[in-house]
Amino acid sequence: MSDEHELTIRVRYSETDAQGFVHHSHYLSYFEMGRTELFRAGGGDYRAMEDRGLFFVVAQFTCRYHKPARYDDLLTLRTRVSKLSQAKLEHEYRLYRGDELLTTAHSVLACVDSEGNIKRIPEVLESLKRPME
Amino acid sequence: MSDEHELTIRVRYSETDAQGFVHHSHYLSYFEMGRTELFRAGGGDYRAMEDRGLFFVVAQFTCRYHKPARYDDLLTLRTRVSKLSQAKLEHEYRLYRGDELLTTAHSVLACVDSEGNIKRIPEVLESLKRPME
Amino acid sequence: MSDEHELTIRVRYSETDAQGFVHHSHYLSYFEMGRTELFRAGGGDYRAMEDRGLFFVVAQFTCRYHKPARYDDLLTLRTRVSKLSQAKLEHEYRLYRGDELLTTAHSVLACVDSEGNIKRIPEVLESLKRPME
Amino acid sequence: MSDEHELTIRVRYSETDAQGFVHHSHYLSYFEMGRTELFRAGGGDYRAMEDRGLFFVVAQFTCRYHKPARYDDLLTLRTRVSKLSQAKLEHEYRLYRGDELLTTAHSVLACVDSEGNIKRIPEVLESLKRPME
Repeated sequence: MSDEHELTIRVRYSETDAQGFVHHSHYLSYFEMGRTELFRAGGGDYRAMEDRGLFFVVAQFTCRYHKPARYDDLLTLRTRVSKLSQAKLEHEYRLYRGDELLTTAHSVLACVDSEGNIKRIPEVLESLKRPME
Repeated sequence: MSDEHELTIRVRYSETDAQGFVHHSHYLSYFEMGRTELFRAGGGDYRAMEDRGLFFVVAQFTCRYHKPARYDDLLTLRTRVSKLSQAKLEHEYRLYRGDELLTTAHSVLACVDSEGNIKRIPEVLESLKRPME
Repeated sequence: MSDEHELTIRVRYSETDAQGFVHHSHYLSYFEMGRTELFRAGGGDYRAMEDRGLFFVVAQFTCRYHKPARYDDLLTLRTRVSKLSQAKLEHEYRLYRGDELLTTAHSVLACVDSEGNIKRIPEVLESLKRPME
Repeated sequence: MSDEHELTIRVRYSETDAQGFVHHSHYLSYFEMGRTELFRAGGGDYRAMEDRGLFFVVAQFTCRYHKPARYDDLLTLRTRVSKLSQAKLEHEYRLYRGDELLTTAHSVLACVDSEGNIKRIPEVLESLKRPME
């Protein structure tokens, strides 16, 4: 799960704003797609994880916007796990248009059960490798 | 619940698109706000209804876009129930900027329980007038 | 441009709502993606069209929601032009999850210049086939 | 413009996700509303500023999510300018539900003209106090 994952994203018209560029809030959805696909590439299934009552929640997000993306741009998102502790899962993101670096970001996730109790992340990730009961 | 409800909405920057106007998808969120507030004005509480395991789902939507809304416009939404049958709850919406009619719409909702079974709407609305058990 | 176009869409987490399904407003963004890709498949480039000061605006939308889509579903959108007149461009949409038909929709677009003046659509589409001056 | 501004926000259904809480991307739109209203309270008009060809762009965002917000929650957003230099305008945000602090955030904005050239922010803010030519 620690390798870098690369995802191609086509900018939707609905993601632009009146300045003609992608609204800064939508990058967080791009990064979420990166997490989903990184997890899938490592053999995980985040939807199945939620069906079992385990949820990753975003605790912190930092995003630096270097250059704007436009409608119909074809972007490349590189997502990787930068840190894994008992309580936190951290990701780094770099979003490119060709060679141009548009956005960099970092997130911290925590894992909770359906009552909101914090779960130990290494155990959660380990158990996800076993088939669902 | 059958009277018309009036709601004031300030257009957010994030709702605009690269044409400089509100993206046509966001009007559906405005109309949803109209339904919530119309329901509240009639003594209902849609959140409490969902907490009891009853959900309104949108079965059909028609929207006519006459004139566009811009960032920071102050809009007036008029929402009313146009029809109530055993299976369907229908609403009509008219969105204004001052005297200008910008958008008109019509929706059909159905009521389901948490397993997706259709519930009779008049009974649901009647039971909502009684205090939660 | 009149043939049917097929687009695969992976449902994003950010498109779901508290009912656990895709919020009904997001389907309009899916359909817009279908229009963009149908246009591209026919040799058009909607972004270049806007750069030349011509814009398609949504005049009417009807959507029927048959079954809900969930996070991480892999959907197939089929988009086609159902009617082309001097003033209007109409599309039909059918959204599937495998063989299940989830949503059907119909839209009417008009073409305007940057001052909002209505343009004749057949001429616009014809001129788009010539190289940009 | 440096005082704190308080804005009341009702959570929309369309802002929730399948976990039942507000999706973490939507807080950025809340904070943008806070900036608009703080600016208005200080006598500014961000829409008029854009009409004159000056734009604030988000260069950096950090958000800490302490507790989640739910559909229909009535939230209080407190927005203030934390720093103003020649090149950057920084804001701090605290979002509450009653006395509970849900989210804190910090943003850095830059000012550009319509060609993307950086403009000196104090001059921009000063000129905005003069009537539009």
